[in-house]
Amino acid sequence: MTPAQTAMIGALAGTLDAKAILTDAADIEPWLIDWRRRFHGAAPAILSPTSTDQVAAIMQAASAHRVPLVAQGGNSSMVGGATPPGDGEALILSLRRMNRIRRLDAEANLAVCEAGVILADLHAAAIEAGRRFPLSLGAKGNASIGGLVSTNAGGTQVLRFGSMRGLVAGVEAVLTNGEVYDGLAALKKDNRGYDLDQLLIGAEGTLAIVTAATLRLVALPPATVTAWAATDDPEHALRLLRRLQTATDATESFEILPAETLAAALAYLPDVRPPVAGRQRWHLLIEVTDADTALLERVLAAALDDGLIGDATIAASEAQAHSFWRLRESLSDAERATGPATQHDLSVPVEAMPRFMVEAAAACDARFPGTRASGFGHLGDGNIHFHVRGPRDANRERWLADHAAAITHFVDDLVTAAGGSIAAEHGIGQMKIDELARLASPAKLTAMRAIKAAMDPLGLLNPGKLVALASPPANQ
Amino acid sequence: MTPAQTAMIGALAGTLDAKAILTDAADIEPWLIDWRRRFHGAAPAILSPTSTDQVAAIMQAASAHRVPLVAQGGNSSMVGGATPPGDGEALILSLRRMNRIRRLDAEANLAVCEAGVILADLHAAAIEAGRRFPLSLGAKGNASIGGLVSTNAGGTQVLRFGSMRGLVAGVEAVLTNGEVYDGLAALKKDNRGYDLDQLLIGAEGTLAIVTAATLRLVALPPATVTAWAATDDPEHALRLLRRLQTATDATESFEILPAETLAAALAYLPDVRPPVAGRQRWHLLIEVTDADTALLERVLAAALDDGLIGDATIAASEAQAHSFWRLRESLSDAERATGPATQHDLSVPVEAMPRFMVEAAAACDARFPGTRASGFGHLGDGNIHFHVRGPRDANRERWLADHAAAITHFVDDLVTAAGGSIAAEHGIGQMKIDELARLASPAKLTAMRAIKAAMDPLGLLNPGKLVALASPPANQ
Repeated sequence: MTPAQTAMIGALAGTLDAKAILTDAADIEPWLIDWRRRFHGAAPAILSPTSTDQVAAIMQAASAHRVPLVAQGGNSSMVGGATPPGDGEALILSLRRMNRIRRLDAEANLAVCEAGVILADLHAAAIEAGRRFPLSLGAKGNASIGGLVSTNAGGTQVLRFGSMRGLVAGVEAVLTNGEVYDGLAALKKDNRGYDLDQLLIGAEGTLAIVTAATLRLVALPPATVTAWAATDDPEHALRLLRRLQTATDATESFEILPAETLAAALAYLPDVRPPVAGRQRWHLLIEVTDADTALLERVLAAALDDGLIGDATIAASEAQAHSFWRLRESLSDAERATGPATQHDLSVPVEAMPRFMVEAAAACDARFPGTRASGFGHLGDGNIHFHVRGPRDANRERWLADHAAAITHFVDDLVTAAGGSIAAEHGIGQMKIDELARLASPAKLTAMRAIKAAMDPLGLLNPGKLVALASPPANQ
Repeated sequence: MTPAQTAMIGALAGTLDAKAILTDAADIEPWLIDWRRRFHGAAPAILSPTSTDQVAAIMQAASAHRVPLVAQGGNSSMVGGATPPGDGEALILSLRRMNRIRRLDAEANLAVCEAGVILADLHAAAIEAGRRFPLSLGAKGNASIGGLVSTNAGGTQVLRFGSMRGLVAGVEAVLTNGEVYDGLAALKKDNRGYDLDQLLIGAEGTLAIVTAATLRLVALPPATVTAWAATDDPEHALRLLRRLQTATDATESFEILPAETLAAALAYLPDVRPPVAGRQRWHLLIEVTDADTALLERVLAAALDDGLIGDATIAASEAQAHSFWRLRESLSDAERATGPATQHDLSVPVEAMPRFMVEAAAACDARFPGTRASGFGHLGDGNIHFHVRGPRDANRERWLADHAAAITHFVDDLVTAAGGSIAAEHGIGQMKIDELARLASPAKLTAMRAIKAAMDPLGLLNPGKLVALASPPANQ
């Protein structure tokens, strides 16, 4: 431990009990490695407070002793956003023990959750109250509310309900000077100046420590209808989505995947049958709630008649719907079995996505002979996971070391030229910090750096993530 | 003109044509007085650029010569937010000539508008394209997009579509260093760091100059059903709203007013008949689109059966619906005819509003004998316009001078104790800057002042509004 860290922890002796300070290396180790096991940081201790007041005391002590803090929830960042730097100067501030749902008001459709509440636990609590929290993602058993807020997380229901930004009604956070900002009151209208809630959503823990959030709930869906369709043209897929959205505003998912990706998933899940018989080039997984099966049947039948799609089926049972989703959720694992790949979480304006999917893949294939590029994901959000796959038999680490940087550079340039985002739902973290600095406009970087310096003048919050300041934090 | 102003305008000679620099006092005078005629500022010139590049050049020159700028659109602020200070040191930056709709894409439901586009003109353009922009307010013939964005404007459709914050898909703005931030691409998912769009929405022109915005459009409503209902209990009104929202998500307006306010409106509009015969204490104006009359009839009939309301009627014609809205829109003028009043634009959590309306009025009546307090407005948003009326025959200016400060102080304390906002939809401007400084939490003020100093280090943007820095801008 550095002298500064020792002094800081000493100053907290009266505030934190023994359980709140972990210094055993075996306890700490799992939290030094990111979800995808790409980054390995160092930290001599984890602080694990149970209240906002304790977080405030920790922040004050950290500022007094110039000790950087890395806030961590479920440690499920896809971009190394919660992994400490390798120099061991920072401590991990774990919010996992702040895991109370302070209030769940079904009438008002609101839940006030502490930062450490696990997403799956909120789902369960909401259902028990006859409501649902309409955001879900693969890491729901680990991801915590504080992390979901701080990364503006997305998922498979963004199409209808938006990402976290649209579901957060208020934020509580501790500033670097230890003051507690309480924005939890769920006011539908409030124009008292800069919207700090919105500024902290997606700030990746670099401006303040989010300690709690008020979240919006919605009614339980009366029914869920799941369908699979196939088409030769992603433009037709988007037109089908627009028709569906005109017929009902309850379209929750509209996922697209290329036939070759489906084939990989079917090979990976031998017990799952192909959803449709057609040999079209693109497949669609569609989910609609609050609407009856007849409506979806009618829209799909008209799309078949008009040639927008070549095949379609509505899941006849929950089991069949579940098998459709198993295919969707296995795509990353299934592709991994086919060889190494670079993965790009990107977005462009929704209307531009069908063309981008085709043209970007062709451009990559031409630029990097021997690779094969394609994207799948949230067509309705203009957000896909775009993968460039190397030869099946290539050594993964070697191939990535040789090619990942150049491919990433090329794909990020294509996205930027299309007016899109190189970080659609996973954020910047430490993985994309150089690409953000390379590609963001000077104005955006100017403003981000100014805000970072204003809110965190000592550079203590999540150092090395999202935005790099000109000068590193001063250590004692 | 100050030497700094003269030098700055001289530096712009090659950039701005003669029409872009107004120095005739008669041309300037109307823009020195706010909408409610409470504030009278001074400025020796109005700069009126026609492009973002010109705004950038103006901003650079202003920074170089330390000349403050007050951005102005339709000058329809209710809180003096666009009126220059009285010292004459600032210039007005009018965005009115930047009035192009750059793009209107009906398929994507987006419109890219320059800051000077008048709201009513956008309404018309959207309708021509078979769409609508679902935000409207009394000043729609004057209010401009830049001002609506910068004040996070609300209106009568917030219940369904949210305020501007929910309708802005992207912002273009000029920073104080002259760099242009282009966030116009409408990306549904984008996690490349701090959301500058959201930070600038509602920032009242104190952080950057908003020059354009991408706005979301929605489908034209297939039908509009308007109803009037009456109840003795605002809690019942809220329960009726919740039932309606369960039955349809197309409830666009749910306005409440007390019987005495309706009586004043009926006296003010002698050609309008009372909507219902009942003598209940509270009246409700309800508007639902995308739903048929039968649905609203069914919900209202059940509410009558259950005693939630005592009377109700559905407008039988467009003319009758129009007369309902005339009553609603006349309330401020009608009340003005009954004597002087202080006006408070406030919000509390929606579920708390029914009780707040009753208890706050009673508290005011008790605290200020001879006055009569009541609120009306957007019950479904938890936002009312709360007025404390003096004696009918009191001299308006004298009464306000004697009582307004104490009443405002008292009402703002009540709102704050209820966890509400003293500036729900009209913002802070210069009118509420002292109350914000008195009542906002230290953390909120710390963060706001830090962000202001970071984005506008010389204090040049809309000085004296929203947030006061410790030190005033330096003048040459």
